Amino acid sequence: MSPVTSLAARLSQEKLARAALTYLAEPGDPALGALLGICGPAEVLAAIKADMLPATGPGCGDSPASRAALERALGRWRVRLARLPGDADIAAACRDGIRLICPGDPEWPDGLDQLGQIRPYALWLRGNADLRFACLRSVSMVGSRAATGYGTHVAGEIAADLAERGWAVVSGGAYGIDAAVHRGALAAQGITIAVLACGVDHPYPAGHADLFAAIAAQGLVISEWPPGRPPARMRFLVRNRAIAALTCGTVIVEAGERSGALNTARHAANLGKPLMAVPGPVTSAQSAGCHRILREWGATCVTRAADVIEMLSPISVPDALASGGAPGSASLAGPGSSDPGSSRVGPTGPDSAPSRDDLDADSALVLDALPSRGGAGTSTIAIDAGVDLDTVLRCLGLLAGYGFIERCAGGWRLRRPS
Amino acid sequence: MSPVTSLAARLSQEKLARAALTYLAEPGDPALGALLGICGPAEVLAAIKADMLPATGPGCGDSPASRAALERALGRWRVRLARLPGDADIAAACRDGIRLICPGDPEWPDGLDQLGQIRPYALWLRGNADLRFACLRSVSMVGSRAATGYGTHVAGEIAADLAERGWAVVSGGAYGIDAAVHRGALAAQGITIAVLACGVDHPYPAGHADLFAAIAAQGLVISEWPPGRPPARMRFLVRNRAIAALTCGTVIVEAGERSGALNTARHAANLGKPLMAVPGPVTSAQSAGCHRILREWGATCVTRAADVIEMLSPISVPDALASGGAPGSASLAGPGSSDPGSSRVGPTGPDSAPSRDDLDADSALVLDALPSRGGAGTSTIAIDAGVDLDTVLRCLGLLAGYGFIERCAGGWRLRRPS
Repeated sequence: MSPVTSLAARLSQEKLARAALTYLAEPGDPALGALLGICGPAEVLAAIKADMLPATGPGCGDSPASRAALERALGRWRVRLARLPGDADIAAACRDGIRLICPGDPEWPDGLDQLGQIRPYALWLRGNADLRFACLRSVSMVGSRAATGYGTHVAGEIAADLAERGWAVVSGGAYGIDAAVHRGALAAQGITIAVLACGVDHPYPAGHADLFAAIAAQGLVISEWPPGRPPARMRFLVRNRAIAALTCGTVIVEAGERSGALNTARHAANLGKPLMAVPGPVTSAQSAGCHRILREWGATCVTRAADVIEMLSPISVPDALASGGAPGSASLAGPGSSDPGSSRVGPTGPDSAPSRDDLDADSALVLDALPSRGGAGTSTIAIDAGVDLDTVLRCLGLLAGYGFIERCAGGWRLRRPS
Repeated sequence: MSPVTSLAARLSQEKLARAALTYLAEPGDPALGALLGICGPAEVLAAIKADMLPATGPGCGDSPASRAALERALGRWRVRLARLPGDADIAAACRDGIRLICPGDPEWPDGLDQLGQIRPYALWLRGNADLRFACLRSVSMVGSRAATGYGTHVAGEIAADLAERGWAVVSGGAYGIDAAVHRGALAAQGITIAVLACGVDHPYPAGHADLFAAIAAQGLVISEWPPGRPPARMRFLVRNRAIAALTCGTVIVEAGERSGALNTARHAANLGKPLMAVPGPVTSAQSAGCHRILREWGATCVTRAADVIEMLSPISVPDALASGGAPGSASLAGPGSSDPGSSRVGPTGPDSAPSRDDLDADSALVLDALPSRGGAGTSTIAIDAGVDLDTVLRCLGLLAGYGFIERCAGGWRLRRPS
């Protein structure tokens, strides 16, 4: 490959290599995370194929012990080489609404990077919603498969209410609370995201095939595992860290003493994200886990969507500002940060909304590019504003965070003053 | 009165004066609290009768403004002079199991002294249980009158379980949660204390006359108001501070958003006592107040008696030690205080029980005075041990706190090793 065959080909090659790595390695393998921290994914893939570690560099298996560990990992990943699809087949997997996003892509959510060495290598997505945006104002809601009527009712109500107020909800794909969360958000025409522990084309449980199709049509079905991969017991636990990392906070709706939902709760707490629990009757075993994390883990008691939003608003707005990162955004931090004691700073607080004059140059261009009637898609807005896609994505997040704009069926539209 | 007609007569006169003050002033009047902080009760009573403030002293209305406030208070208290019973009638009120205890009496609970200027002037008691002891290991449990079946069920279960484990429960006298708490403790043959906002001989609500009789037979019915006094709306709120102050911690079982139980909760929090709440369905208005204090006031989520005891044990044991106060008790602090991280220090923890060799001299004498079979009353123990009543009371608290002895129908008995 001559030097002029260029960045585009190289990026595409890197993306294909990351896709291939999702076939070879189980997600959350810190050995692969460490390698990817210092070598490009194509280099790592080539090393696996050649059964030879990349040249050592600082931190890259340069001590005998860590080198031995990496060699064992290499053997582990090589086991699946025989079944690794060719590049053409991997590219062909990106059909029927399935696509791949990688670290560094504009749609890659910042939250995942908090996972460090156990960050996903890539994410397979089914659906057209923008994952990065959805995650800027998002809540994970998880709970028991063996939920009670009370639990599914409350989960559905809170999810619908959150969705109506412009918050994306994130959950697994299980029966019980997970399904109730998705159904609630779907009913409210909101964005809902199912994070699976198997391929996004592999409905598990099978009875949720229609539900996943509905989620993909309105939100996203996502996975760290490649298309076609079945679920396995350990995969659910590995998946849980991504649910916690993607979102601004986690709500446990119903969980028995040994529920997997408490594993997601633990990840949220370890990541320093707000952890919330919906209480229930103390006579219900399905609420025992919720009551335990309220008592012992410092989870916050929430009973409705407004409680959840109140908990997350001071957090989600700085997140949106941080991802804005453009010159001038520092002045925008003013209205939100000047009153840290307020329980309602940010998007919903009428006093905290800055005027157009406070916007940085890019955000002002993007705002002006929104049509006065109806909605516009992200790429249309980018073209109209004359900024690149990455910038438009960041600016839209900021503008939505401050209540200038909102999502709609056609993409984004100006928000009418209430 | 000649100087030799002695201390006994003087004490009795002071006690009669405090009894009279409960007829004249509403409890919690800080003006009376301030006066009683610097003048004896007989002197204060004489001043009210003479319509002339006591001679000024440091803090006693020595500024013109505070003197004017005290003069207004004097007018307020004098209004009831016309109906003040004579000494003989007040003494006659102490019949039918009714008695009066005053600050400084051996049975006066330490917790009330934390109220400072709004400390009760005296307490009217109906029943034979020892208030000071009962309060050493006690929990207030309060909640809505309009309780649900869920709330009364849970209140009764937790109260019964606390009573079975040797904890006294304290509540008001209302329908709903209060009644369920008393019934639960009574069913478990435990000590239960009803704190009324009217005279202890005045059943309010009338439908609880039998319940109060059962409580008095097994525990105590107590009040700051004199016999015969009817309840009034404000009296319930004034009463609530005493419920919180008497006990080691407060549990709210069911409370609507505007429930009076939240007033008791606020007093507990202001006094720095552990505040706990039992959650319920978020769909129940009767649990909304509990969920609010869990979320906003930092109340601890409790679901059963064990949770409550775990919350209070590290607190109640130092209380017991503090009231022990005898030489040598410092060494007893060892087993409990050496492991502050343990969630089960103190009475119920088998590892923390000190041996007889660890006891101070007075406690050892008292322990030896307990009969090997059956129980003994406090005064019998005092005589047998050869220590005064105040000392025996303090030592019994310490010994009970460490699990050497326990209450029984006959008074106190040795606790059998489990």
